[in-house]
Amino acid sequence: MKVSVVENILKVNDSIAEQNKKFFKSKGLLTINIMSGPGAGKTSLIEKTIRDMKEDINIAVIEGDIETTYDADRIAAAGAQVVQINTGGACHLDANMISQSLDQLELDSVDLLIIENVGNLVCPAGFKLGEDCNITLLSVTEGDDKPFKYPMMFNVSQSLLINKIDLLPYIDCNIEKIKNGALRINPELEIFEVSCKTGEGLGNWYNWLRKKMTL
Amino acid sequence: MKVSVVENILKVNDSIAEQNKKFFKSKGLLTINIMSGPGAGKTSLIEKTIRDMKEDINIAVIEGDIETTYDADRIAAAGAQVVQINTGGACHLDANMISQSLDQLELDSVDLLIIENVGNLVCPAGFKLGEDCNITLLSVTEGDDKPFKYPMMFNVSQSLLINKIDLLPYIDCNIEKIKNGALRINPELEIFEVSCKTGEGLGNWYNWLRKKMTL
Repeated sequence: MKVSVVENILKVNDSIAEQNKKFFKSKGLLTINIMSGPGAGKTSLIEKTIRDMKEDINIAVIEGDIETTYDADRIAAAGAQVVQINTGGACHLDANMISQSLDQLELDSVDLLIIENVGNLVCPAGFKLGEDCNITLLSVTEGDDKPFKYPMMFNVSQSLLINKIDLLPYIDCNIEKIKNGALRINPELEIFEVSCKTGEGLGNWYNWLRKKMTL
Repeated sequence: MKVSVVENILKVNDSIAEQNKKFFKSKGLLTINIMSGPGAGKTSLIEKTIRDMKEDINIAVIEGDIETTYDADRIAAAGAQVVQINTGGACHLDANMISQSLDQLELDSVDLLIIENVGNLVCPAGFKLGEDCNITLLSVTEGDDKPFKYPMMFNVSQSLLINKIDLLPYIDCNIEKIKNGALRINPELEIFEVSCKTGEGLGNWYNWLRKKMTL
């Protein structure tokens, strides 16, 4: 009984996600869903991406949070159109929340729609939103065992950004172990080592985004 | 309809948690439930606590993970009795999982039972397990906005440990903002600034545990 309820929820979600996907396609958008645990740097990554790409790429952002508009305020200050979804306690975004938020964005001239999911390395991986790509963000300060402990997140993602590499000299973290672990779960994963603080490695991430936008 | 299902799940959970609590009381145990996002240092804190207290305190541990026994292996190596709960995808422990695991522990001579919850700053806060105290662990590398963004976790906890303070010189984190934010949500919260790497501040945490054990 319990399992059938869960299946039903996911089935309804997948069908709305499919509608979202069609809508995004009709607008000619690339839509990415960024997921991570709390504090890995999702908002910092999005801020940096907006500031560095906004000259020639029109970016809009959907911000998922349990409550507050702190992150949306940061995104707006960085210079992008943003809509906030407050989940009211729910630990992940779902396709219906995205669908409900879309009439608050003017998407006709947008090239890249970034969805920032709720900070959680577990549940967001189970809910499709209509995105083209899932991105996992992991910070080196979280330790090098995360791919093994949260495999689903790495399994559903096309790209993994390993953030805060500027802190590597001060911590015990074997970045090769993260990369090998993630690739064992998902050999197709494109991995970028970055620091949203210093900007190191972000050029490769921007190139990847540009390539995806022209596909 | 959706809400009533959730209420029912929580009601059943609370009733099993109450049974667990009675059982722990009959054994004369202090039971603590440690919660945090992924990689904040729960396992490191428990390892340190075992190594530093095991001379005179008998500690047992229930390890919650989605999969793998990595953390349980670390706990066993530190010298404590440990049982692993693999949630099989679920993002939090519940009272029934705890209840099912209890016959695998010999608790008669145990003073302190530590439950390590799944790494998630959201859902574990909603599920009572039968614990005497909830502990939130936050690392300074997660940023100083977490109390505002994940208030429920801070609201249900008796104690907040702010970990990885050895990294403060290398990051932008205002620790006073964390403390003030957490105390605004929960003025009763006892806060400890610690580094599980260097050991700094852990003495105050051990004193707090000892005090709780004699109550």
